[in-house]
Amino acid sequence: MAQAHALERLVQALRYLPGVGVKSAQRMAFHLLQHEREGAARLAQALQQALASMRHCALCHTFTEAEICPTCLDPQRDRSQLCVVETPADQATLERTGAYRGRYFVLMGKLSALDGVGPREIGLAQLLARVDHLVDAEREVREVILATNFTAEGETTAHLITQALKARGVQVTRLARGVPIGSELEYVDLGTIAHALVDRR
Amino acid sequence: MAQAHALERLVQALRYLPGVGVKSAQRMAFHLLQHEREGAARLAQALQQALASMRHCALCHTFTEAEICPTCLDPQRDRSQLCVVETPADQATLERTGAYRGRYFVLMGKLSALDGVGPREIGLAQLLARVDHLVDAEREVREVILATNFTAEGETTAHLITQALKARGVQVTRLARGVPIGSELEYVDLGTIAHALVDRR
Repeated sequence: MAQAHALERLVQALRYLPGVGVKSAQRMAFHLLQHEREGAARLAQALQQALASMRHCALCHTFTEAEICPTCLDPQRDRSQLCVVETPADQATLERTGAYRGRYFVLMGKLSALDGVGPREIGLAQLLARVDHLVDAEREVREVILATNFTAEGETTAHLITQALKARGVQVTRLARGVPIGSELEYVDLGTIAHALVDRR
Repeated sequence: MAQAHALERLVQALRYLPGVGVKSAQRMAFHLLQHEREGAARLAQALQQALASMRHCALCHTFTEAEICPTCLDPQRDRSQLCVVETPADQATLERTGAYRGRYFVLMGKLSALDGVGPREIGLAQLLARVDHLVDAEREVREVILATNFTAEGETTAHLITQALKARGVQVTRLARGVPIGSELEYVDLGTIAHALVDRR
């Protein structure tokens, strides 16, 4: 079968989604056209609206529709803490814990030599300028919490930021590493247990 | 963080894709907006074009942009055989083997009580009408090959079609079950080996 043009283009376009190969894209295209035409129309609309309206918050860099995001504008947030995360999803996860009430800086990525992501791409200069402004002008930020992922790339990113913030008279902390709640030691990897031993309290 | 509206809508819309949950949808939305804006725009466009232009071939039911698909129009196809498959992807797979030169009927699904898919949804009446037309008017179709999947639902679908075609004076065959090429017996499931024994040649 010479595949119909519009269908073939849809399959190709679905491959822009992360983690979607040819087979998945074919399955998605078939499902949308056969069983979910209304959903497909909504997806097309949502994509266009998001592309048109979403931009980066001038202060914390997360996605927002306004100049400054609601979190940065919230007067209730603790102004003494700034938490650095990789993505808006990580920020949302931290928010759901209810354990943090400070403000954020969202890197929108992580250092990755393989993907050509360097200090410029994660907005290191903007982060430093933001910290400088908060320390100098508002004299309120006392602590920067690094909540990048505990992967090789996340750790590298945290290390770079720690080095850059060293001379700025602000405390830099990192999320604690340790044994997850509900887990049995037998099934936890050794590196995590070693960290939990060192950081015992 | 009160998630921005357009972003939240995009995440919800991405969940119309089969096999995509909340976490995957968030990851996809972030990836598209941060790293693949051009791809996202193309995806939106491809969705709308496909929705607008794709319809079902009047003869074989596959997706096509014309009244009748190129495969059905092809005068080179063997007119004595009609192969019944579940999806356009299955049809494409058979075409890639180069071992079949007849015509197709695409069910666009399979019988599934759980999903509320019955004989009407897979176009059984259209299939029977098509076979009747081919047998009576063209007197050319001698064989209907059932190439539905070898899953419980695919087998049920094949069984139903076999029963329905019984009285119509046309030979009904099924793809052979057997040991896949390149496989070692030790690692093939017993049901497959049993079938391969029964169907030995």
